[in-house]
Amino acid sequence: MKSTQSTTLAALGQQLGVLVRGQGTAVIDGIAPLSEAGYGDLSFLTNIQYQEQLHTTRASAVILAPQHQDLTTLPCLISDEPYACYARLAQIMFPAAKGTGVISKQAFVNEQAILGSGVTVEPFAVIEANARIGDGAWIGSGSYIGEKVIIGPRTRLYPKVTIYAECMVGADGIVHSGVVIGADGFGMAPSQEGWIKIPQVGRVVIGDLVEIGANTTIDRGALVDTVIEDGVKLDNQIQIGHNCRIGAHTVIAGCTGISGSARIGRYCMIGGGVGIVGHLEICDHVTVSGFSLITKSITQKGTYSSGIPSLPQREWLTILGHLRQLPKRAKKKKEIN
Amino acid sequence: MKSTQSTTLAALGQQLGVLVRGQGTAVIDGIAPLSEAGYGDLSFLTNIQYQEQLHTTRASAVILAPQHQDLTTLPCLISDEPYACYARLAQIMFPAAKGTGVISKQAFVNEQAILGSGVTVEPFAVIEANARIGDGAWIGSGSYIGEKVIIGPRTRLYPKVTIYAECMVGADGIVHSGVVIGADGFGMAPSQEGWIKIPQVGRVVIGDLVEIGANTTIDRGALVDTVIEDGVKLDNQIQIGHNCRIGAHTVIAGCTGISGSARIGRYCMIGGGVGIVGHLEICDHVTVSGFSLITKSITQKGTYSSGIPSLPQREWLTILGHLRQLPKRAKKKKEIN
Amino acid sequence: MKSTQSTTLAALGQQLGVLVRGQGTAVIDGIAPLSEAGYGDLSFLTNIQYQEQLHTTRASAVILAPQHQDLTTLPCLISDEPYACYARLAQIMFPAAKGTGVISKQAFVNEQAILGSGVTVEPFAVIEANARIGDGAWIGSGSYIGEKVIIGPRTRLYPKVTIYAECMVGADGIVHSGVVIGADGFGMAPSQEGWIKIPQVGRVVIGDLVEIGANTTIDRGALVDTVIEDGVKLDNQIQIGHNCRIGAHTVIAGCTGISGSARIGRYCMIGGGVGIVGHLEICDHVTVSGFSLITKSITQKGTYSSGIPSLPQREWLTILGHLRQLPKRAKKKKEIN
Repeated sequence: MKSTQSTTLAALGQQLGVLVRGQGTAVIDGIAPLSEAGYGDLSFLTNIQYQEQLHTTRASAVILAPQHQDLTTLPCLISDEPYACYARLAQIMFPAAKGTGVISKQAFVNEQAILGSGVTVEPFAVIEANARIGDGAWIGSGSYIGEKVIIGPRTRLYPKVTIYAECMVGADGIVHSGVVIGADGFGMAPSQEGWIKIPQVGRVVIGDLVEIGANTTIDRGALVDTVIEDGVKLDNQIQIGHNCRIGAHTVIAGCTGISGSARIGRYCMIGGGVGIVGHLEICDHVTVSGFSLITKSITQKGTYSSGIPSLPQREWLTILGHLRQLPKRAKKKKEIN
Repeated sequence: MKSTQSTTLAALGQQLGVLVRGQGTAVIDGIAPLSEAGYGDLSFLTNIQYQEQLHTTRASAVILAPQHQDLTTLPCLISDEPYACYARLAQIMFPAAKGTGVISKQAFVNEQAILGSGVTVEPFAVIEANARIGDGAWIGSGSYIGEKVIIGPRTRLYPKVTIYAECMVGADGIVHSGVVIGADGFGMAPSQEGWIKIPQVGRVVIGDLVEIGANTTIDRGALVDTVIEDGVKLDNQIQIGHNCRIGAHTVIAGCTGISGSARIGRYCMIGGGVGIVGHLEICDHVTVSGFSLITKSITQKGTYSSGIPSLPQREWLTILGHLRQLPKRAKKKKEIN
Repeated sequence: MKSTQSTTLAALGQQLGVLVRGQGTAVIDGIAPLSEAGYGDLSFLTNIQYQEQLHTTRASAVILAPQHQDLTTLPCLISDEPYACYARLAQIMFPAAKGTGVISKQAFVNEQAILGSGVTVEPFAVIEANARIGDGAWIGSGSYIGEKVIIGPRTRLYPKVTIYAECMVGADGIVHSGVVIGADGFGMAPSQEGWIKIPQVGRVVIGDLVEIGANTTIDRGALVDTVIEDGVKLDNQIQIGHNCRIGAHTVIAGCTGISGSARIGRYCMIGGGVGIVGHLEICDHVTVSGFSLITKSITQKGTYSSGIPSLPQREWLTILGHLRQLPKRAKKKKEIN
């Protein structure tokens, strides 16, 4: 992918604070994987299994780890964290869009809302009374900021984010379109007259540097707050129930659902399509593979799974038939013995 | 959680129509679980396994069932349904917000729309021709009410709800942000020229006292209506296909998907992340545990499951390997015998 | 379902280009399944197992295949593709709504946006600079069209669709409410300082005749584009990760999640609630049944599954217990032998 700007390898090395090896004057105007890179592109080797591509790549330079620098004679950036180095490089070559600092006349901003300096508010956004928007924050078109909501500095809400009253989002966050923060948790009590709604009077409190993917929903707490700690990254279409706590720097992939009052540790990696039952605790540094179901607390770090990879349907149905016969066969065997 | 109002135990007992035991003059200004309650809080015992907490709680009073009233000397509200009593109490202490009754000049209300008395319409909401909005209903910012839609009295739509033309929502409903009611069902016919769209000309018809969670979608019927009966409670990110019928007072947890033309009975409890195949029928009073797959009609009340709890990955992969060997082993055994 | 128009069987046969048998003057003013049809309704036999209903139906005429025409004496439309014929008929009897061709004064259209002829823009829609909207396209209320987006002719966006900058939607598409196209893919690199965001600088490119269901999300590519080819039909609440490619005429049912860089072939049918792992390839004409997990590339056409149908809970828990004992039993058996 070509950037709109062009620079040199040496300049990039300096900006990134990493070692440059070889021709520092090499012109860099794009980023691409080894197999697709061309003249002017900076590429990267983050996985040793792709080392063969170093011989055939047409990249002008490459990022790699110190122990791999002898695999190529191309100009290099040498980094202990080549993948993170590539990410930072991409941020330099493709800088994030900046808000205009304009508050649209077609937005609705309550006169009792408090806006910091340099705030951007796009058309048809709504900011209710006593909401506070931090310096440099960017409220996308059609987004809704309820009463007493607090948005941290430099946080960007893409169009059509909804934040219910009293919730908080920290600094330097990114919230994608269709996200709903602070809707009522799913709480009701059975009675003779049907289900009685339990008012959900907690908030959602989100830390700094959190990114939330499109159409993800995070419910407000019942009597306590739902908490998303600093540095958490949530993919699209995740559902987080009331009273949950997600520990700092945990990442969760798309379509995962977490029931109420679950507590997830720090530095966890939760796959996509996972289900986590409520009222349990997962310790730090736990990995859950995609499509797994967690029904009990996890107290040891490690990887947990219960997904079943597909097979040709006939084969799977045969296995399923045998699975269902297991209790009968065990019984029979016992009787024989 | 402290309320903004303060009252006495006796006054609450009277409002709730339940028996007060002990000091009725006890001042109540908040609600909290037994373990977290402090002076002024009313707490509750809804599960006998927490009875020990009655000895250590700092609550000023407690709600409990008649058979548990001897477990404490604290002032009490005594109710046959202590959890429902707690829910009603919370509704008194934390009353739901009320609409302002103002129709924003920044909303778009078609001149042929019919609005009842005391209707609130927030900025950037759209109400199309011949829609009818019941008395006291509250249409949140950015919500879209299509042509000929009917919204019952006192129903609240939070910001950014979408209701396609001709659909109906009953009285006293709550619809959270991002909900889409009445989008086209997934119907098309294969042909030599690719898929041919089948127009979806049924409606969605929703009863009274229904709550629908954030980003849930309910498709309109193909030739008949999709129907959600009275008192149904839907959590977030649920998908309900065309022509479905969900029986009265059934509750469904988040991320569950129901394919077209399924009929779910009354008083069912469907867990989260469940899949229900189309064109089947589930009778009344069925419970489906989370992450289960329903592929056939269910004609007996009871609990149904197929979820598999996670294990440490290595352990799970070993089991999976044995599972796949079942047919081969059975064959081998037969040959030996 | 009754139409607002009335015609004759002969006229419909001519419009559809299919053979009419029997009384062509029969008046047709509605469509219904055989079991529910009444006077004036045109019905259809698409599945031979319903042939008995031909004897009792009160339909005025019926669509069927040539080989079934002797099963009834009713007036008929005879088609090699009776289901597709029914779909086309329904499109005639219930024509899709047409846009008004009005650009609402309450919309925000950047002066550098380029609108074709006959474009409809509803209130509170936003069209940013250098976006191009094809002739006859219809931008629903509250929809957001980012900078440099291209929307093809006659494509309809229902209310509250979001399309991020630079993405493309082809001609004759239908995009339902709450869809988010082009949000950032889930890409970040681990580092000592936490996760570093990888800018997502690819686009989403969508072909012609694509329909996308409510609240579905399609992420933009990281360095390449995410591509949805012509004629693809996506149901509600689907998540498609960055860099994916979905082949032409593939259909995907609701709640399915596809991880980044997966490539799905043409004419595939993917069921609901399916999980597809990233960086794999599925060939053409593959069917995946609902609730399956695909973890490896599929190179043979056919049907693949891994879903487990529910059982009464006690029965299922017994089977689960036996499943978990499989490794232990196998070991024991080996020791005995």
